[in-house]
Amino acid sequence: MTALAPVLDTLDKNLDQSLDRLFDLLRIKSISTDPAFKADCRQAADWLVADLKSIGFDASTRDTPGHPMVVAHHEGPAGSPHLLFYGHYDVQPVDPLDLWEDDPFAPAVKTGERGTKIITGRGSSDDKGQLMTFVEACRAWKAVHGSLPCRISILFEGEEESGSPSLKPFLESHAQELKADFALVCDTSMWDAETPAICVGLRGLVGEEIVIHAANRDLHSGEYGGAAANPIRILAKILADIHDENGSVTIPGFYEGVEETPSQVLKSWEALGETTETFLGPIGLSIPSGEKGRSVLELTWARPTAEFNGISGGYEGKGFKTVIAAQASAKVSFRLVHKQDPVKIREAFREFVRSRIPADCSVEFHPHGGSPAIQLSYDSPFLIKAKDALTDEWGKPALTLAMGGSIPIVGDFQNFLDMESLMVGFGLPDDRIHSPNEKYELSSFHKGQRSWARILDALTK
Amino acid sequence: MTALAPVLDTLDKNLDQSLDRLFDLLRIKSISTDPAFKADCRQAADWLVADLKSIGFDASTRDTPGHPMVVAHHEGPAGSPHLLFYGHYDVQPVDPLDLWEDDPFAPAVKTGERGTKIITGRGSSDDKGQLMTFVEACRAWKAVHGSLPCRISILFEGEEESGSPSLKPFLESHAQELKADFALVCDTSMWDAETPAICVGLRGLVGEEIVIHAANRDLHSGEYGGAAANPIRILAKILADIHDENGSVTIPGFYEGVEETPSQVLKSWEALGETTETFLGPIGLSIPSGEKGRSVLELTWARPTAEFNGISGGYEGKGFKTVIAAQASAKVSFRLVHKQDPVKIREAFREFVRSRIPADCSVEFHPHGGSPAIQLSYDSPFLIKAKDALTDEWGKPALTLAMGGSIPIVGDFQNFLDMESLMVGFGLPDDRIHSPNEKYELSSFHKGQRSWARILDALTK
Repeated sequence: MTALAPVLDTLDKNLDQSLDRLFDLLRIKSISTDPAFKADCRQAADWLVADLKSIGFDASTRDTPGHPMVVAHHEGPAGSPHLLFYGHYDVQPVDPLDLWEDDPFAPAVKTGERGTKIITGRGSSDDKGQLMTFVEACRAWKAVHGSLPCRISILFEGEEESGSPSLKPFLESHAQELKADFALVCDTSMWDAETPAICVGLRGLVGEEIVIHAANRDLHSGEYGGAAANPIRILAKILADIHDENGSVTIPGFYEGVEETPSQVLKSWEALGETTETFLGPIGLSIPSGEKGRSVLELTWARPTAEFNGISGGYEGKGFKTVIAAQASAKVSFRLVHKQDPVKIREAFREFVRSRIPADCSVEFHPHGGSPAIQLSYDSPFLIKAKDALTDEWGKPALTLAMGGSIPIVGDFQNFLDMESLMVGFGLPDDRIHSPNEKYELSSFHKGQRSWARILDALTK
Repeated sequence: MTALAPVLDTLDKNLDQSLDRLFDLLRIKSISTDPAFKADCRQAADWLVADLKSIGFDASTRDTPGHPMVVAHHEGPAGSPHLLFYGHYDVQPVDPLDLWEDDPFAPAVKTGERGTKIITGRGSSDDKGQLMTFVEACRAWKAVHGSLPCRISILFEGEEESGSPSLKPFLESHAQELKADFALVCDTSMWDAETPAICVGLRGLVGEEIVIHAANRDLHSGEYGGAAANPIRILAKILADIHDENGSVTIPGFYEGVEETPSQVLKSWEALGETTETFLGPIGLSIPSGEKGRSVLELTWARPTAEFNGISGGYEGKGFKTVIAAQASAKVSFRLVHKQDPVKIREAFREFVRSRIPADCSVEFHPHGGSPAIQLSYDSPFLIKAKDALTDEWGKPALTLAMGGSIPIVGDFQNFLDMESLMVGFGLPDDRIHSPNEKYELSSFHKGQRSWARILDALTK
């Protein structure tokens, strides 16, 4: 008999008790962004510390200028890897309350729209339900074997939904304590209700606000039009120059560090059935806007972009004003992939802009963000083991996906702890996180626990 | 002895009395935009009617939904031309009052900053002082000759400073009464304190707001960036395409009806001493932005333009939001010259835009304005006569200038009364119209009266 089988049995037998524990946690109104719930946030942290202690973790809250961190450690066999599991115990506000079918802080199990059993309540999916899948896996393992299969540390944050202001300083000051061989981050989704997924790529981001200054005051376009520089015209030209007719970015050096995605990965993405129609149709579009000849998934998961997030200048009110503005501005951001260097991209963009500013005008830059892409190697041994473990649990091959956006904690672990993250989660796209009627599939909660047991087993064999 | 000389003598002798009359009018607080001064506006109209009647005009106020019009007629010799003189008796508000050195409604003559005698007070230059130069010329002519040299009608408006809401309906319903051989409009400036000027060209205007729609909602740029159309990018490309590298407008057919300005006119403009440095320097610029190889005066007076008056889209607040907006918009206007057709230009622009909208996006247009340019022919006999008359009075050749903006009344006379306008005025750029401490040069008032007497004489010889 393997070490795993009795752990899975225990998880199955104890599902009701694990639900009771999750409900206890879900009842705590740990809304981090609203100061009225400060005590609730601490209560959630304290609850987690007590629960982790009951498993045998050396657990404690750690004060921050905001809500406390929960840090816990449990030893493992000598020579076993050291894993850091991350989740967050804070939740989003619940407004508008009248759109909830059930009390957001009175969790229950009921039958959902798709006929499956769901766990209702704020935080059920994001992220209390998810983080408890891991805690329950540890509890069962400990109950069966009296130990854990490897050294495990846990970090639960209480400010993820309010911008994580305390996180970076905390990681910096606790780097030695928290540094592990790699991190497990449970804040992502499955591909669909039957298909597990591991996220192996997150795009990076460089943001830059540019403000173009022309005349020293707003001008009357009758009096000056044709003679005075118009900053909106200069700005439009710059933005228009950024893409060529094939949708590629023209900034010199922009594609440095961009790799072609392995063809077998592209094939596995093709097999997902996501097409231009399924991806763009729901938002009312039909033509991919990025580099020609690439699928929408490749464009959003594995290709860099330049996007214009905002533009402003001149008279923007109702009606008309024949003004030539003194300034105009745009917010431009770049999603980065693979080894693109955010510092180089920012500088190349600034040079690109500067070279297009007439000699009698000027430009100022306001940087925003600046994080490289996250890309796990597709052949990393721990990725392959986790993938096999998920495939075993769900009976369908686990997918290795990428995401177009970013999960800041993953970049922070990389930057502050020099540690890669394995992103595995059991949420679903229809979990309505951040919205009324948030839910978590009961199967996500149950099979999520079993998945972590299998992953722990696989990673420590 | 000519008919003119005794009229000029009379104007010289009666300057003090003419000042008393102007002061009476200036004391009336005829601020048209503020309902609190409604009675004052009527008082100004009544004052003018009484004054015109004292000269022998058949004068009356005409009620409108707003402030009354003053209309007056005086017969002239059989076969003489019929002139319509236009001015406005309403004035701008006086806030901020504490910036005035003198009570804005207690006019006086004092020595100004340039050492010349000035008339102080709100409306002294815009437009009460100007319109009274013409009234005084008529009064003196009538006093000397017992008649006027031609048939003269007068239209004084009381809503020019508040958008002239009643003007167009009034012109339409009184077209037969007001139609004359041509109009005299006294609401412009001299070139400088010694150099008289006639404005012969005003640019027209076509405004168009374009709103580009892409996705059916705002999108997260991480999730959709690279696949979803970005309306700011589409808009920037359209705007950037409107000018070529020489600053010319690329919209097909845009230059249809644009004429080259006669070289002797260009030479006379060159002689004015306005250079790129003097024109752009004060506003902090140094490089003309329009068509290459043309002077700033030609660019602003006699060349058409495309200007971007406002642009808006996506996140415009502080900081950053990685959004792909559902829509973006711009306000675009064209200044027209010569025979450019506003209807054709608007349609050509819309076609230019439509051809650049991706098939899965859309555009809506909101028209604004739409008036052709005003251009008197440089060899019109009445222009030449008026120019000679001004030259005789001021001892310096009168200039024929153009203006980059528009004077709506001139277009309205053209449209509703099919009547050209002779724009002659004696204001100066430093008269601070619309601002505290408005003034009118005493010499403008005095020599303005004499100028009109000369012009009347010249036009009816």
